Amino acid sequence: MKIAMLGGTGSIGEGFVLRWAEKHEILVCSREIERAVNVACDYTNILSNKGIQCCTITGCGNEAAIKDADVVVLSVPYQGVISLLEKLSPLFKDQIVISLVVPMKKNKWFEYTPPKQGSAALEIQEILPKTVKVISSYHNVSARKLANLELSLDYDVVVCGDDDKAKKTVMDLTHEIKNLRPLDGGGLASSYMIESLTPFLINLAIRNGLSDLGVKFV
Amino acid sequence: MKIAMLGGTGSIGEGFVLRWAEKHEILVCSREIERAVNVACDYTNILSNKGIQCCTITGCGNEAAIKDADVVVLSVPYQGVISLLEKLSPLFKDQIVISLVVPMKKNKWFEYTPPKQGSAALEIQEILPKTVKVISSYHNVSARKLANLELSLDYDVVVCGDDDKAKKTVMDLTHEIKNLRPLDGGGLASSYMIESLTPFLINLAIRNGLSDLGVKFV
Repeated sequence: MKIAMLGGTGSIGEGFVLRWAEKHEILVCSREIERAVNVACDYTNILSNKGIQCCTITGCGNEAAIKDADVVVLSVPYQGVISLLEKLSPLFKDQIVISLVVPMKKNKWFEYTPPKQGSAALEIQEILPKTVKVISSYHNVSARKLANLELSLDYDVVVCGDDDKAKKTVMDLTHEIKNLRPLDGGGLASSYMIESLTPFLINLAIRNGLSDLGVKFV
Repeated sequence: MKIAMLGGTGSIGEGFVLRWAEKHEILVCSREIERAVNVACDYTNILSNKGIQCCTITGCGNEAAIKDADVVVLSVPYQGVISLLEKLSPLFKDQIVISLVVPMKKNKWFEYTPPKQGSAALEIQEILPKTVKVISSYHNVSARKLANLELSLDYDVVVCGDDDKAKKTVMDLTHEIKNLRPLDGGGLASSYMIESLTPFLINLAIRNGLSDLGVKFV
């Protein structure tokens, strides 16, 4: 598959690129194409230095990547993603779009601040063409741990979406990352639950002297 | 300490009584006093048959138990608890009240249905005298596993409350149950997060062929 990582030059993007590039062609996207090309080159070198054979990792602009991809991953902060997608929406056809987006703000503690649709995922589905299959997942995976290929991640990943085939594809992608267990979280209407876990986990980590918290359902 | 279990004859009540009775005097409460007395007797026999020395486990009515207790545990369904507490409120002074209450309904799936205050815990704090310290916790512990003394429960228990001393007491009570790890979840305003996890966990279990799900933050 061809996977476009919007925000692929950021910390959570890195982990997914490094973990998926063995099996999939990756497009690392950024508004700054030069930066995307450099980072894609860095990722290729990281894998090459570890002796890991990978498919191509290409740096490119958002527009080209979206047109070309089977799966588009939104690893972009909420502030920015909506206006970005409103602009890019006409380029989408029937891709699977994986939203990692969490609308939150920090007062004394982090707080979940969903839009009127109920969750970022539902707002994104509203902006994009109806033929696009939005899947909500991966909000609660530690970027630092994901990017460290020595670590196996003993986390559960809840996957929400209204298109069963697209959900299955994302659950399969999750299985490819060692020790991550995908769980079916139901429709996109349930996305608020996994989105809101993110600020909760950050607060929990700060309050209890922990770090890089993920969730395991036992 | 003297712990009153409102709803102590129910499934989640049983586990707490069996796990706490070694160190604490337990009052098993029900509107039907005869039933409370019988169940208290059953619990005593279960522990005695296992050769476990315990403090007294006494069956009694709700009113007597509340007046007498240091800690009152609300292991009662949301439907019923509010009208019950409105009636019993004048009996409360400065007890610690632990709310396990989750307002939810079932359509096709379970759904969290918080009251206008934002969570059951906040609604309960509003009903009870200001001197009562409401703590929200234990919503996501499996009743079946808790009642099985052979099992050590490898769960995390998030504890929310506005009174630090009361929160510390509940975290200490949690530590007394082998392998449960108490985590500070912040003030009572965060209770909606752990309450809403309950229907989410039930749905997740049903959808993925799992059972008795709890949470571990890893």
